[in-house]
Amino acid sequence: MLPLAVEPIGTVRRRADGSSVLEVREEFQEGLLGIAPGDRIQVLYWMHKLNPQARRRLQVHPRGDTSRPLAGVFSVRSPMRPNPIGVSSVQVQAVEGNRIVVAGLDALDGSPVLDIKGLPDR
Amino acid sequence: MLPLAVEPIGTVRRRADGSSVLEVREEFQEGLLGIAPGDRIQVLYWMHKLNPQARRRLQVHPRGDTSRPLAGVFSVRSPMRPNPIGVSSVQVQAVEGNRIVVAGLDALDGSPVLDIKGLPDR
Repeated sequence: MLPLAVEPIGTVRRRADGSSVLEVREEFQEGLLGIAPGDRIQVLYWMHKLNPQARRRLQVHPRGDTSRPLAGVFSVRSPMRPNPIGVSSVQVQAVEGNRIVVAGLDALDGSPVLDIKGLPDR
Repeated sequence: MLPLAVEPIGTVRRRADGSSVLEVREEFQEGLLGIAPGDRIQVLYWMHKLNPQARRRLQVHPRGDTSRPLAGVFSVRSPMRPNPIGVSSVQVQAVEGNRIVVAGLDALDGSPVLDIKGLPDR
């Protein structure tokens, strides 16, 4: 199967207080219309620090704990997987132009953002 | 920013009864170890029928209802978005070799599957 191309729409910036900023590229900023503090969003990001060799591993010890039996990468949420796309649900703290401040995003600083999707209220 | 390449790990097959089969490519089958009926999984798929022009739209009328005000594509779950990756949480009905039968997946027949991630029990 042919590879498909995804284009980053922005970048994750980690802040010292543990929150993160989704810095959206200006050409995509109008896509943020309607996102407001308190909203829950789903963030898709590229796990860019993953060693490319890790993309070939299909079984892992969950949480790196070798006392646990091997599990298929598709049965867990390990970053090791053929397509290193992370999906995380977070709450919006602030929106400032092309920057969305969120709490609890586990993406590393510099991770390319691939998509943001609104989530229904709980 | 440079585009990133994703490689499909399988294909969605819709069945007449409304369920779907995730047909995983054989070279990725060992990544399914541990997935069992009753598990909840998150499926990432490529919305392959989307008109490429739709990837350039950054604001849409929610659910195509033109009486509703425009919303940014990142504030909703419209298929129109720069990177047409769908994320859906579904329950596993059966696992048969490289095929996972799931209920309630809204992906079209033939959609490339990009990733499968385990979800915690509710």
